[in-house]
Amino acid sequence: MLMQTHEARLKALREELKRRNLNGFIVPISDEHMSEYVGDYAQRLQWLTGFGGSAGFAAVTLDHAAIFVDGRYTVQVRDQVDESLFEYRNIPGDSLGEWLAEKAGEGARIAYDPWLHTWAWVDALERQVEPRGITMVPADGNPIDAVWADQPEPSGAQALVHDDTLSGRSSAEKRAEVADWLEKQDLDAVVIPALDSIAWLLNIRGGDVAHTPVALSYVIAKRDGSAELFIAPEKVTPELTRHLGNAVTVRERNEFEKALGEYSGKRVSVDPDFGVVAIAQALRAGGADFVFKQDPTILAKAIKNEAEQQGHRDAQARDGAAVSRFLRWIEVNAPSGEVDELSAAAKLEGFRREHGDLRDTSFDTISAAAGHAALPHYKVDEDTNIPIPPGSIYLVDSGGQYPAGTTDITRTVWINSADGSAQPTQEMKDRFTRVLKGHIQIDRLVFPQGTNGGQIDALARQYLWEAGVDYAHGTGHGVGSFLGVHEGPQRIAKPSGGQAGTSQELFAGMILSNEPGYYKAGEYGIRIENLVLTVEKKIEGAEGRFLGFETLTFVPLDRTLIEKSLLTADEIAWVDAYHERVRKVIAPQLEGEDLAWLERETRPL
Amino acid sequence: MLMQTHEARLKALREELKRRNLNGFIVPISDEHMSEYVGDYAQRLQWLTGFGGSAGFAAVTLDHAAIFVDGRYTVQVRDQVDESLFEYRNIPGDSLGEWLAEKAGEGARIAYDPWLHTWAWVDALERQVEPRGITMVPADGNPIDAVWADQPEPSGAQALVHDDTLSGRSSAEKRAEVADWLEKQDLDAVVIPALDSIAWLLNIRGGDVAHTPVALSYVIAKRDGSAELFIAPEKVTPELTRHLGNAVTVRERNEFEKALGEYSGKRVSVDPDFGVVAIAQALRAGGADFVFKQDPTILAKAIKNEAEQQGHRDAQARDGAAVSRFLRWIEVNAPSGEVDELSAAAKLEGFRREHGDLRDTSFDTISAAAGHAALPHYKVDEDTNIPIPPGSIYLVDSGGQYPAGTTDITRTVWINSADGSAQPTQEMKDRFTRVLKGHIQIDRLVFPQGTNGGQIDALARQYLWEAGVDYAHGTGHGVGSFLGVHEGPQRIAKPSGGQAGTSQELFAGMILSNEPGYYKAGEYGIRIENLVLTVEKKIEGAEGRFLGFETLTFVPLDRTLIEKSLLTADEIAWVDAYHERVRKVIAPQLEGEDLAWLERETRPL
Repeated sequence: MLMQTHEARLKALREELKRRNLNGFIVPISDEHMSEYVGDYAQRLQWLTGFGGSAGFAAVTLDHAAIFVDGRYTVQVRDQVDESLFEYRNIPGDSLGEWLAEKAGEGARIAYDPWLHTWAWVDALERQVEPRGITMVPADGNPIDAVWADQPEPSGAQALVHDDTLSGRSSAEKRAEVADWLEKQDLDAVVIPALDSIAWLLNIRGGDVAHTPVALSYVIAKRDGSAELFIAPEKVTPELTRHLGNAVTVRERNEFEKALGEYSGKRVSVDPDFGVVAIAQALRAGGADFVFKQDPTILAKAIKNEAEQQGHRDAQARDGAAVSRFLRWIEVNAPSGEVDELSAAAKLEGFRREHGDLRDTSFDTISAAAGHAALPHYKVDEDTNIPIPPGSIYLVDSGGQYPAGTTDITRTVWINSADGSAQPTQEMKDRFTRVLKGHIQIDRLVFPQGTNGGQIDALARQYLWEAGVDYAHGTGHGVGSFLGVHEGPQRIAKPSGGQAGTSQELFAGMILSNEPGYYKAGEYGIRIENLVLTVEKKIEGAEGRFLGFETLTFVPLDRTLIEKSLLTADEIAWVDAYHERVRKVIAPQLEGEDLAWLERETRPL
Repeated sequence: MLMQTHEARLKALREELKRRNLNGFIVPISDEHMSEYVGDYAQRLQWLTGFGGSAGFAAVTLDHAAIFVDGRYTVQVRDQVDESLFEYRNIPGDSLGEWLAEKAGEGARIAYDPWLHTWAWVDALERQVEPRGITMVPADGNPIDAVWADQPEPSGAQALVHDDTLSGRSSAEKRAEVADWLEKQDLDAVVIPALDSIAWLLNIRGGDVAHTPVALSYVIAKRDGSAELFIAPEKVTPELTRHLGNAVTVRERNEFEKALGEYSGKRVSVDPDFGVVAIAQALRAGGADFVFKQDPTILAKAIKNEAEQQGHRDAQARDGAAVSRFLRWIEVNAPSGEVDELSAAAKLEGFRREHGDLRDTSFDTISAAAGHAALPHYKVDEDTNIPIPPGSIYLVDSGGQYPAGTTDITRTVWINSADGSAQPTQEMKDRFTRVLKGHIQIDRLVFPQGTNGGQIDALARQYLWEAGVDYAHGTGHGVGSFLGVHEGPQRIAKPSGGQAGTSQELFAGMILSNEPGYYKAGEYGIRIENLVLTVEKKIEGAEGRFLGFETLTFVPLDRTLIEKSLLTADEIAWVDAYHERVRKVIAPQLEGEDLAWLERETRPL
């Protein structure tokens, strides 16, 4: 079969738009659940344009088309998208509304798929374009699906039971808590479209989305503690049916829209960040009294219970052994110059897979040599892959999905030359050590209940700031329990950085990454990432409740890159104590050369 | 003349309300300019209730009355206000809207003075009470003024010229900048009711409000760079008229409301935080196209120019000498037990007054011994005054208004016993040193352009948090140039603390206080406050623009309270370098015993 060109695809889309009497269409990267990672069937932007990034959208009119991407993708979009078909536009600098007003003009009818956008997004766009005489029209069926001949089917993977011993609480208990919330809010039901919320609430997992073990489905949870689960029948095993029990009615996924019409006169909520326009429209059309409210499972899911906390400790210990073995492997093999970024990533995954519990990586491994490491979101593939140069910095950010917990770790290591003589520059050591000092500062911080992540972010940055440098990403994100490696609502980041979650109060039980970094464009990149668990800190004479972090990730830090003279006595003690814990946690899982390496790497500074 | 009782006053107010066919009235502490400090003529709450605090309001119906105060004043309100006349209510716990709904009931007409409330305040109240059938009515003339027989006249103090050598920029230049802003915003004029904005814009000062050298007036600034100044004629000297020049028209203050009616068809803005309801109503009634926008002078005023920066350095140096002499005086005299809080405050003011440039204190001196120091906003008066106990901590927070600049400094010192044997407890030294560490952290912090005060606040608190304690106030506020000692828009504080300004980006030229503290209820209080100037920091190899602080305040820190073993080598070096600067700045102004004391107090730790 001849591969269809992007030009032909764009032409087919335009024919379809004309057939429907539409003047344009918006193509986002999103699914019906506003997921961070979307299935192949929903990769409409990539199909249409060739763009393989994780964020962006295209706008197509009958005569013009543009692709909008942010600063991370300005280089990539030039490689992957034909500028003669799609002009390049920047997010957030360029306005979609302005572009539509200019290219489509007055009287135009621009369609969007109401299953792929939030209400707020459409509303904001309408406010921009309506005064310019443009009408936004919800498409009846996605026009791309009509012309995408070999569009993959949504994954048919089976939904799996997530055992109560891992989840720590039964689905019935969780649904009872949601029912209490509905009662307090004077609501009859809540529509839950977020896949990880569904997985958490029903204690189920799935295999429909890469890296995040969720099952494509919807839930409507009710005030009596019952729920309806909308899911493709082929995903449902007898074991799952037994697990769900009588209080959870299983219905076909394609009945969901119809079901939203069954709430006439009832008060029903949906989360504004996860509920798409089509859900709100269907509820309204059915006569429901519909309101936007934050998904009640989000905060409950973020606060890990004892079983989940222990699961994370177990998963991190296993994962740490795999990463440690990898770090020895690369220390031994890379100085030859014969290891490249892809083969390194594959080797690391291999070490992880040796433990039977690994279900998936928790995201695409960032295996970045030299200048590539200066791109915080670098994704290695056949085109970008380079050999790791001896005498350079190598950064590896990776994680695993284990039933007990989700891991995420970054280590930055010095790759020696074959003769063992290459040394990192003084600047590299200075920067690595400043990143480490910030990392330590977060790890051992104590803070009062009521503090949010926006308040403590600067503590991680202060030593870099002192040297006149910074990093252009957040310091920490939430992490799920065998769910999303990025999980809200909490975040440690600059409050002015436009990332959600910096004003979310931190609670004991929340897991966060602690990952300051430094990036020198074209030369090298540094990031040190452990996961930490928010815990109560008992302090004698404390006035009020204080919190802090328990370190979850145990893998040696590369001492070659540490400039000891920049560390205070307390910081040196932290590094030594951390390495002692690493040895205690990891050593029982290693042997031979790996064990000898671990002991060498974890001796006191 | 017989003093009228509060009962009689309340009765008179109710008669007046009945006469006007009103069912209630709200009595705030505010003036027509939303000033922080208000003149005696506007002290209507105190007249009616006896309450002397700086924040709160009363609500009066024909049968009920309540006074609403916040946590700082729960004790004071009980001392000063008769509960049989006014029930006590808490801010923010108790809702005025609820209270009115309960006490006044459906159909009630509750009045407010439209010259004493912002639009947002009235709007929020209306949203609460209107569904309960209550109508909010703007009073035509304040009902209290109608029954307050001996109400003071607004101050008749003359307005003064603030010399261009001190202001650094002429009023014409500043008005041209406002005119540019009006042009960019497509506005014809801006109404400026904030007294310090007027003082800054026209380079004038006044004597109408205690502690803040402003003149009661209004300004309307126009797109051609001209302005109208509304001010009582007796305040205007020939010198002032000459200074204002032809482009500033002087009109009587009582013509202001009429003048607001002269903008039919023009676009006019007013600041939502400083423009009262009456201004908005008068503009609308006159047919103006009126919008809320931040006062364009606020940011410009906060960013001090070279002349203002130098003025602050000069004023702080003089002020520091006076405070240093006072600290020696109290060290010598207080151990006898014969110094009390009031006499100490008077002595301090005396030292300040020896320099002819002092115009006023910049706020009521907080002279607080022992347990009083644990109240961060303690105000000493004849009733609260106590002797300073030998063997205790004494806290003094004070400042001066000098034409060159406004000062604000807090020192916390150990008062020895007469035999010199009393020692602070280990806990006192621990807390003092942790406060000092946080103070040092802010003082020497470097941060990238784009950072706000909410991001850096935790740096001042971290060492207290480590010990399980905190302080319940902000870390730093802006300070004016011979204007308000509290000046926006910037602030260093918890972003979640409800104080405005924590999201304001810090700019070079902004002055801030740096004042962490610790308060042990009933026992002692600690605060260390210097003023700092935001400056650009040149760092070799810096990526982007970085800022930091220049210390402006130079007065010794009490070494008796420092626990040296808690300080790092860097922190000890900071204290020694600070004391060396103190000696350099203050020594030339001292002699004899004072000089010997200074040299003793500033030797290396």
